[in-house]
This record gives sequence, C-alpha cells and structure tokens, in this order.
Amino acid sequence: MKHKKLLTKMFAAAVAAAQPSKVIAQHLPAKPKGRVIIVGAGKASAAMAAAFEKAWRGKVEGLVVTRYGYSVPTKHIEVVEAAHPVPDVAGQTAARRMLQLVQGLTKDDLVIALISGGGSSLLSLPAFGLTLEEKQKVNAALLKSGAPIAEMNVVRKHLSAIKGGRLAQAAFPARVVSLVISDVPGDDISAVASGPTVVDPSTFAQARAIVTKYGLDLSAAVQGHLAQAIDETPKHLPNAKAILIASPQQSLLAAAEVARKAGYHPLILGDSLEGEARDVAIVHAGIALQVRRFGQPARRPCAILSGGETTVTLRGQGIGGRNVEFLLSLAVKLQGMNDISAMAADTDGVDGGAEVAGAFIGPDTLSRARALGIDPVMELANNNGHGFFAKLGDQLICGPTLTNVNDLRVILID
Amino acid sequence: MKHKKLLTKMFAAAVAAAQPSKVIAQHLPAKPKGRVIIVGAGKASAAMAAAFEKAWRGKVEGLVVTRYGYSVPTKHIEVVEAAHPVPDVAGQTAARRMLQLVQGLTKDDLVIALISGGGSSLLSLPAFGLTLEEKQKVNAALLKSGAPIAEMNVVRKHLSAIKGGRLAQAAFPARVVSLVISDVPGDDISAVASGPTVVDPSTFAQARAIVTKYGLDLSAAVQGHLAQAIDETPKHLPNAKAILIASPQQSLLAAAEVARKAGYHPLILGDSLEGEARDVAIVHAGIALQVRRFGQPARRPCAILSGGETTVTLRGQGIGGRNVEFLLSLAVKLQGMNDISAMAADTDGVDGGAEVAGAFIGPDTLSRARALGIDPVMELANNNGHGFFAKLGDQLICGPTLTNVNDLRVILID
Repeated sequence: MKHKKLLTKMFAAAVAAAQPSKVIAQHLPAKPKGRVIIVGAGKASAAMAAAFEKAWRGKVEGLVVTRYGYSVPTKHIEVVEAAHPVPDVAGQTAARRMLQLVQGLTKDDLVIALISGGGSSLLSLPAFGLTLEEKQKVNAALLKSGAPIAEMNVVRKHLSAIKGGRLAQAAFPARVVSLVISDVPGDDISAVASGPTVVDPSTFAQARAIVTKYGLDLSAAVQGHLAQAIDETPKHLPNAKAILIASPQQSLLAAAEVARKAGYHPLILGDSLEGEARDVAIVHAGIALQVRRFGQPARRPCAILSGGETTVTLRGQGIGGRNVEFLLSLAVKLQGMNDISAMAADTDGVDGGAEVAGAFIGPDTLSRARALGIDPVMELANNNGHGFFAKLGDQLICGPTLTNVNDLRVILID
Repeated sequence: MKHKKLLTKMFAAAVAAAQPSKVIAQHLPAKPKGRVIIVGAGKASAAMAAAFEKAWRGKVEGLVVTRYGYSVPTKHIEVVEAAHPVPDVAGQTAARRMLQLVQGLTKDDLVIALISGGGSSLLSLPAFGLTLEEKQKVNAALLKSGAPIAEMNVVRKHLSAIKGGRLAQAAFPARVVSLVISDVPGDDISAVASGPTVVDPSTFAQARAIVTKYGLDLSAAVQGHLAQAIDETPKHLPNAKAILIASPQQSLLAAAEVARKAGYHPLILGDSLEGEARDVAIVHAGIALQVRRFGQPARRPCAILSGGETTVTLRGQGIGGRNVEFLLSLAVKLQGMNDISAMAADTDGVDGGAEVAGAFIGPDTLSRARALGIDPVMELANNNGHGFFAKLGDQLICGPTLTNVNDLRVILID
C-alpha cells in the first residue's frame, strides 16, 4: 500500500500530540502551599493521572474515574472504572466520593481536575432528591427528542449535583486548575465532560424551556426539581481556571508538520467536520480533485487533513465505523486514481464498534478488492467498512490509545 | 440581508463568465474557404447560436436543438425545441436533419458544433434498426440499475447513430470545431451531451459487459445490436477539435475575483463537489468555522466558493432544490453566527423544481424564521427549502440564464 508508512507516521504524531504522557508536563501549575488533590473523569483520566503523578514533584492524592478497561497503573491516585455511555452506580459512587474529597479544603490547597471526553457519563450524580433511574429516563427521552447536544446538556447540568461547575464550586476556596483534553467542536471547555469545573452560562429557566420545546415526558420529581430551581449552576468561579492541554487542532497541526517535512503542502480543512461519513468523503474527494487539477486550494504534492466526528446511518448488515465508511466511500468516488492515497482513523484507537482505529486506501484498493471477489459498492451500501478493510489487510490497528481528540483524516495527492 | 448585494454580484459574475454572448467571440475559429455550417444541442444551444451569428463575420447556416422554452431569436441558424430529460420525436428528427446537414461537405468547409449540457437527451437518434421506444426502455433500465453515469453513457453511445463522435465522423472531411460549455466533473468533453463530435474511447465489448454486470433486461433487438458490434464509435477524428468556452471553474474564478476586489480572500474548494446537499453544507460549515477560528485554510475576511451538483434525497413533502436545501442545512448548523453569510444558486437559474435560482442566508435567517413561526429544522426535515426562503423573501430569482455551469455556493466569513 502506497504511503502507508507516512500516513501511519502522521497518525502517530496526531496521537502523540494528545498523549497525556507527552503533554501534561508542559502544563503543570505552580506548587501550592497546601495539599494537592487530583480529581478527574473521562476516557483519558487514568492515563492523565499516571502522567501527572510522574511529572509532579511533590505529594499528590486523589481519585479519577475512567471507562471499564481504560485503567492504567498509578502509584498515588486512585483509579475507579465505571460505565460509558450509560452511567452506572460505580460512576455515581465515584462522583460522590470526589465531591467529598474536595470539601473542607483551604485557599492554600490546589485541586487538579483531569478532564477528557466521556466524563459526562462517567461522572454522573443526580441532584438531591433525584435517582439514577430518573436521570437515565431523562437521558433516554433527550436522546429520542432530536434536541442538539448543547440543549441536552443544559437539561443534564440542571439535574446533576456535580456537572456544570458544581465540582469546582464544592472545592472553594481551594484553587481548581483543570487540565482538559478536548473532543468537542470549538474546544468549548464547558462542554467537555459537561464541564464539572467550569462556569455554566445556562439556567433552570432555559432547561424548562427545552423540556417544553421537545415535549419531554418527565417524572414529577424531575419536573419539580426544574420548577423549584433551587441551587442554580455557578455563573462565576473565581477559584477555577482551565487549560486546554490537547485538542483536535493541536493534533492536526502535529500531523500536518509530518506531512510538511515529507514535502507535502498541508491543507487543514477543519478540526471539527461533521456530517454523514460517506458524503463527507465525497466532498473530500471533490477537494482532492481540485488540488490535483487546478492546484487549488493548495498546490501538489498536497496533504489534505481534517478532524471531527462524522456519523454513519446504519442501513446495511455491517457494523459501520465512521472512518472506514469514509474511506470506502472515498475509494469508490476516486475510482483508483493513481496519485491519491488516504488514511482515516479515530485517535482513541477505536473506530465505532471494532477494536480497530481505521484503515488506509491507495490507488489499488478497488482493483485488489475486486480481484478478491469483493464488490466495494456493495460493501459500502452494507456499511461493512471494517469487513472490507480486514479482508484487504489494510486496517490500522494500534489498540486503545487512552486519549481522544476525535478522528484524523488525511488524503495525500502526489 | 447582510451582503446580499455582494453575493448577488458574485453570482452575476459567475453566470456572465458562462454566457455565450460574453464568451463566444473570444473563441471564433479562422474563416474557412468553403461553407460554415452550425450544428448543436443543449440547453444553451440557441443562446450560443444567437451569439455565434452575431460575432461571426460571414455567412452562416445550420440547425441547433434546445429544450422547450429555451429558444432565443436567431437570424440565420434554425432553432428547434425538443424534450429534456426524456427524449422525444422532435429531438430525433432534429438529430437526423443534423446528420444530413453535415454530409457531403468538403475539406474546405467548417462545421461549428455548439455543445452544452442537456444535449444528450435533446440529440437522440437510435442506431439503425432500433426504435426510440427501445432506447427509452434501455434508459429506464439504466437509471434503475445504479450504474454510474460513465457506464450508462458507454451503453447509450453504442445504441446511438449520433453520439460518441458519430456527428463529427459524418462531417468528414470537413473540419469540425466544437465550442463547449461544460457542466460535467473534470470538464470531460466526451461526456458533455454524450460527445457527438468527440472520439469515444469505449467499445461494444464494454457496453455488453456493463449490461451483464447490472443484469439489464434488454429487448432482442438491442441485444442483437450490441452483439453484432457493427460500426464501432470513432477512436480517431483527425478533422475535429473541441474548445472549452465556459466551465464551472471559469465561473468560480470570475466570482472569486469579485470577492477579492471586495476585500475577501477567496478559497475555491472545488468545481465539482457532489454529495447529499445537507451533508455537503455541514462540511462547508466546518470549514467556515475553521477559517473563523484559526484562519485556516484561508484568512479572514474569507469567501469560500464551490461548484458542482449536490443531490437531495426527498424524504419530506417539500420539492427539494439542492441549493436551498444546502443553505437551510448550513443555516441550522451555523445557528446564526454573526459574521457568516452565504448564497447558493444554480447558474442556469433553476434550482430543482422551482423557477428560482437559489437563496441567501445571513446571521438573522433563523431568528427571522422563528419570529414568523417557521421551524427551520422541521422545514429542512421536510425538504422544503424553497418554501422556507419564499416566506423569508430571501430567494434569488433571475429567470432562466440560458447557460449552465452547475451550482455556485459562496460563504462569506467577515
């Protein structure tokens, strides 16, 4: 496969730029007079905790929660595993313990919050008077409603005892420094893990308006909680600050630099592209053809890069996987053009339901598939990208990377 | 509406760059010793004929075929109207007359072929022994088969008496100069109007393979014609040459120049972008946000431009229209961002089923719609872009432009 080595190197650079072990040491706050307490939630939180305690000179203690299977060994910071994307009791217990951990601190103490994607489900604690089951029902109703994620989060934050800045509020007067790995469009820190340590601009009134707008059928307890509007989320947290230590854009820049050194003109389209994977691929193909024919919007040899999360609407029997679906659609559209190669992969190492990060395509992808009796158009219609690339031996497999800055897509035009 | 004037001016520049009256005079061939015969087919052929006879110094005669309602007055060249996209007898008669017109010429004579999109249906003449009805059935079977347009055209060219270079072949030894307005990806001249004056690289054997591949159920006469393989399409036409006088890219460059003069950095993504309109919009939104936040891939103020034809899969009660669907999806995705405006329109003046070229959006599109009690998300789900922009008074209406270089999409980021 053409350029597999260079494309793999670009992916590795993108992942490295988001690895806690590589980036956390550059963002250590000044040592406080008092104690240092670590809290945190997200798919990367265990890896962040391990990296933090390795880089930090001094005593640390604390607790982070991560997804089942995402633990790494730590010496001082406790790691708890919980369920994602549907919260469970383990996450709830961890959230309660975390709130207790930061209570009673003084202004000489420092809380470090290690925040990454997935933290919203992992760190779930119903507001006083509500149960986990009630919150789960609200979640299910929200997911069915068609409400955009921003509106869902307004409701969620107003049913939680820890989201929307409440964790930082609980730590007052201790200082809270959040080290954040972003996986959200625009790197809106209040959206990563539902922002437990960041001010929340939304209100109970807005939460009620959203419930009305989508006609959500909620329990009396939940309705009562929203109506009483006691204990609004904090609009001001003078003790808290947040630092973005890794982001999709930073990883794109790292991958682009590898391409540049290999002689390609990098063209970064966006760090948060969305849309149906197969159509996003068709647009990428159109841009690649423009580069190829007119030297626009960048000259050849060119590396087109993009990040963000596409979606796959499952219609066939395959398991989907947005990066492999993107690549299969791209290959079908380009029809074996002899100077174009590509790679797409999830920086967390897991593309959809398979323990595979992504795959590669090259000029010979379609012809090799057909030689094996595989019809690429049928496989695409069947959402069987993972099956397709497995049979070709062109998967990108690296195991869970324990970080996540969404997808990396690269198209090389020679 | 913000920037409506500038966006309209960009659209006008794109259309002007593809107007026969503006471009044909620059591409006149040298005057021959003998006669000058005009032939032609396409939605722009009447406008091209009128522009040609106005610009040409000397005697001209001939015949062109255009779509019902697309005639313009001419003095010397006859204009015939026929059906599009399903061929009718009028087109068939015109095709037969055109072949007769170019027969018996000498090498001192010059045939000018005025070719534009739509000509494939308008200039339809079944090969000897086949009927129009048989060809119509093949067409219907091809459209249902899922075969890509390139494969459909291989079959069509091998069932035709005029497509695939046969018109130029008939004119030999006269010289044939084709003036072409392209509406196809890559400006492949053999694909515009099925290339009646351009060599055809495909063969009867390939046509038969495509019939087998898609299991097409064809009449005995059609099967017999493909099996006998008499009279292959010409692979060499020493008497013919083709000149691209207008193309999507040329129109994009003209619109980009207007933006540049108004202080915007133009970023042309591609002249032939495809994909489902709402998803193409989401990708454009992602690129616009990248420009806005990181000054990539171009600095602000920036004008993102793209061409080509998207598709709309109708699921709601609206009539679709790929440009208005693109804009509605873009508006919903951008959620009223205060420094982004956009326009999308078909350069032929007709976006889908409405006599409307396209529309505009600005920061206040969503809020104005909601104030009128219109839900943009519902209207998008309903494929009702035309209804949406009609109610807002933000349509772009210019009447049929009598040319076609596909769509023009512009996003301005201030």
